[in-house]
Amino acid sequence: MPDVVIVGSVALDNVKTPFGKAENALGGSATYASVAASYFAKPGIVAVVGNDFPKKHVELLKRKKVDVSGLEFASGKTFRWEGFYEFDLNQAHTVSTELNVFSDFNPVLPQKYRNAKYLFLGNISPALQLSVLNQMKKRPRLVVSDTMDYYIGKDPEAVKQVIKKVDIGLMNEGEARQLFKTPNLISAAKQIISLDSEYAIIKKGEHGAIMLSKKGFFAAPGFPLENVVDPTGSGDSFAGAFIGFLAKSGNLNEKNFRKAIIYASTVASFNAEDFSLGKLANLSRTEIEGRVKRFRELVRF
Amino acid sequence: MPDVVIVGSVALDNVKTPFGKAENALGGSATYASVAASYFAKPGIVAVVGNDFPKKHVELLKRKKVDVSGLEFASGKTFRWEGFYEFDLNQAHTVSTELNVFSDFNPVLPQKYRNAKYLFLGNISPALQLSVLNQMKKRPRLVVSDTMDYYIGKDPEAVKQVIKKVDIGLMNEGEARQLFKTPNLISAAKQIISLDSEYAIIKKGEHGAIMLSKKGFFAAPGFPLENVVDPTGSGDSFAGAFIGFLAKSGNLNEKNFRKAIIYASTVASFNAEDFSLGKLANLSRTEIEGRVKRFRELVRF
Repeated sequence: MPDVVIVGSVALDNVKTPFGKAENALGGSATYASVAASYFAKPGIVAVVGNDFPKKHVELLKRKKVDVSGLEFASGKTFRWEGFYEFDLNQAHTVSTELNVFSDFNPVLPQKYRNAKYLFLGNISPALQLSVLNQMKKRPRLVVSDTMDYYIGKDPEAVKQVIKKVDIGLMNEGEARQLFKTPNLISAAKQIISLDSEYAIIKKGEHGAIMLSKKGFFAAPGFPLENVVDPTGSGDSFAGAFIGFLAKSGNLNEKNFRKAIIYASTVASFNAEDFSLGKLANLSRTEIEGRVKRFRELVRF
Repeated sequence: MPDVVIVGSVALDNVKTPFGKAENALGGSATYASVAASYFAKPGIVAVVGNDFPKKHVELLKRKKVDVSGLEFASGKTFRWEGFYEFDLNQAHTVSTELNVFSDFNPVLPQKYRNAKYLFLGNISPALQLSVLNQMKKRPRLVVSDTMDYYIGKDPEAVKQVIKKVDIGLMNEGEARQLFKTPNLISAAKQIISLDSEYAIIKKGEHGAIMLSKKGFFAAPGFPLENVVDPTGSGDSFAGAFIGFLAKSGNLNEKNFRKAIIYASTVASFNAEDFSLGKLANLSRTEIEGRVKRFRELVRF
């Protein structure tokens, strides 16, 4: 039985950055999040792929001990994203998005997923996020939601309805500004909290992440990376490592949330050092712990 | 005798932000830096104003115990800057810059300034920054330089020559990217160090600041501000508080530099809460210490 259920997209990506390119590469929010979570816990993935999806990618997930019984194989083509980054690696430019089998995705959770205590609602539509939440037999101990600009543009109220139902509303800086129509991230975070989300976490890419709760404020810098190769999936890796770390420790107080954010930032920083899951799928716990230690040193004063 | 000499501009600003406006308001890099430094040390200002410069502004500097014997009164008009900010308060938009008396500025240090142990070379031309440095009788214990996009665009090599001569090359994120033609701030900071600057400090506005030395890396988040009113002068306030703090403590090891960055970020954050020097000139040490304490809490994990 997986202890963390992760729903989102599994994709085949074409990505170009100033440092190279990847074609037909494994991608998607659920992929990055579940592999990141696998360093801490036993994730189960809920997603859909087409019959063109290479077996080797399923093998990779299995090798990382990701439960794939929630991965649906539909007839048709796998979701495809093509994009590029210029020298400002904070900004992804989309060339094309082909939803393919993802457009009719109706996630159905395997029975053994329905008792999981940790649930990450990755970037699928708000309606499907709620449908997944409702399939759980018991309210999980911790539910984290993410979203994306597309769903905010389409129906911001639906996105807010999801945030109301979860414990942690997670999103990136641009999404937070867009959803709450404010340039001020502290104000956006306060609005997430006021939606009855217990914690607000805003991811800021190279600038790290902030967390607001009723108790206080936490700011983590980004890990200083000189060789960013491809940031695709780093936000999803952050989310997966965050919930995976919490599932492993089982401790849901604010102090441990802070620690989880540092682990999440660490895993996300590794992900940006190679295309696709080139680096993310090949980490060791020693590497992760080493970078977390460097994190401690770099904020000390 | 002042213990910190601060050279830069003194200006009259017209500023509009989404939260209001200020007209003919006191501004300029040397103004913000010297008032920020005054909370820790005795700054002496080196700058030029015209005969239209209101006496009350000189009184304000005197009230903050800023030595004004290096403030030259030239015949003509004071340097004027007009600009505005939209909802993205990280980005200043210049409407007009009238150099006026600043265009012929040739800083001459009063004799009593020439033995100061701390020197901040604010944003005047690289040639004038070097002229000021050369007027010091003895090499100061610590020289910090700032710059701005205008001088980088005009003559990047001259800006680099100044960085070679100083101990700390300080600049903001956009300037660092522009000077070293890289989107990567860690790479830019390494290039500052390779110019024989002992420390590189890059200011990132709401995202805080980073410091690189041969010994290590430090990252400070921005203080979480919900009510940013006008960020004008916050970078200069950062620089002034930074060197003022170090002048007061006299301790120039890396550990104390980290502390100085936190004090600098704290003073800079107050500055952004009002137009002109409305807030900056009216702080108490208790307020500053209180916010520094909150800084400690917000990075702890």
